[in-house]
Amino acid sequence: MDRIDAVVKTLDVLEALWQADGAGVTEVTERTGLAKSTVHAHLTTLRSKGYVVQEDDEYRLSLRFLSFGEHVKHAEPLYEASETPITDLAERTGERVLCSTAQNGLGTALRACDGDRSVPSDITVGTHTYLHCSAGGKAMLAHFDEERVADIVDTWGLPAFSDETITTWDELTAELETIREEGLAYNRGEYLPGLSAVGAPILDNDDTVYGAVAISGPTHRLENEWDIDDLHNQLLSAANTIEVNLLFT
Amino acid sequence: MDRIDAVVKTLDVLEALWQADGAGVTEVTERTGLAKSTVHAHLTTLRSKGYVVQEDDEYRLSLRFLSFGEHVKHAEPLYEASETPITDLAERTGERVLCSTAQNGLGTALRACDGDRSVPSDITVGTHTYLHCSAGGKAMLAHFDEERVADIVDTWGLPAFSDETITTWDELTAELETIREEGLAYNRGEYLPGLSAVGAPILDNDDTVYGAVAISGPTHRLENEWDIDDLHNQLLSAANTIEVNLLFT
Repeated sequence: MDRIDAVVKTLDVLEALWQADGAGVTEVTERTGLAKSTVHAHLTTLRSKGYVVQEDDEYRLSLRFLSFGEHVKHAEPLYEASETPITDLAERTGERVLCSTAQNGLGTALRACDGDRSVPSDITVGTHTYLHCSAGGKAMLAHFDEERVADIVDTWGLPAFSDETITTWDELTAELETIREEGLAYNRGEYLPGLSAVGAPILDNDDTVYGAVAISGPTHRLENEWDIDDLHNQLLSAANTIEVNLLFT
Repeated sequence: MDRIDAVVKTLDVLEALWQADGAGVTEVTERTGLAKSTVHAHLTTLRSKGYVVQEDDEYRLSLRFLSFGEHVKHAEPLYEASETPITDLAERTGERVLCSTAQNGLGTALRACDGDRSVPSDITVGTHTYLHCSAGGKAMLAHFDEERVADIVDTWGLPAFSDETITTWDELTAELETIREEGLAYNRGEYLPGLSAVGAPILDNDDTVYGAVAISGPTHRLENEWDIDDLHNQLLSAANTIEVNLLFT
């Protein structure tokens, strides 16, 4: 079935407002490539329905999206099930811990907890990420069947974020095989040079993938300061606790 | 300018999915009053853009709305500024504390913190509420100029939620005058019988309204167990702390 043109345009307008953190008609026009009159008509319609607010000449997304955002977050059983294990892991390690899930072939962070010496990150709750360049993403990919992985690569490609990013199908399948053998996934500067992460999948008894938990920090600190066995145990323990929590929610 | 018909319809479809917590084509058709083929075309378009996910015959909002939701939440300075004062107030009092703001004439809860004996509530983060029937909402209305209050009442009316809800313009303006004199707003079972709340506005030096903080609990407990002077002091102290935080964010 054909897509409804006006719906595609209005979603593009919403994305432009989101990316620009609020914008005027001219900036939305530039970002979307739509005609100015079209942008104006969409903004007027979105505003009349309460999805966009206008202040002077600037438009931004309204708090109506907060209802939707909270709704989809709480609809994921993983959100409740991961609260205590993720908070604990961040406290114990002092590092940044993420709990993510996959939807439409992309990862989304449902929780991001900071420890007392976490480094900053552009990945926060709600951020969509490619799966092939993160520890949690690769932990999930390793437990999808090959057809699903192929679909995801078809749809999203394997874009490079650093010199270390996996960009070929052969490299990716070899890496996923290693992850299945070792039980953990590593991101060695594959998204940002100098930043590493270790991830574990969150699975049920049938190997259904609910998500992943990952701990991230400066490569030097993770490789040289950490007792790797201890770090692995803590990560697997957190993932396992979430799996048990999921059984009873 | 006329509204774009397809955009209005697609927002109606999204709202139906949100209200129904996921739904099939038939249920969306019933909720929106649109033709089945129209609903199908909208769902297909929304899905192709990643805003809706489909599992078997059920459609639901995707995690893309989590990005939007987090974005609009963090765009409100009140969100960061209220974290510690709201958490503290809930801990000290043991009751439920809300921090809300107003947009498009409705209130939205930005934070909801529970104390150790909070009662459950259907108002959670992101929930849109009428302003005339809540303590925080009335605290905000009392500091809007009369024209803005009149606009809000014109747009949203004064629907009754209980026998105690204010439903006339005269009652409302008298109530808002009292609130301005006393500095605090009361909700005496006006949204739900048996549930009361006390709210204070969050203002800047020019009387601009940023939002409100409110504490809610069973009417009996608030009226009979609490030292009212102490409760008022704690509420005004929390609102004042948020006001100062806002000055420096």
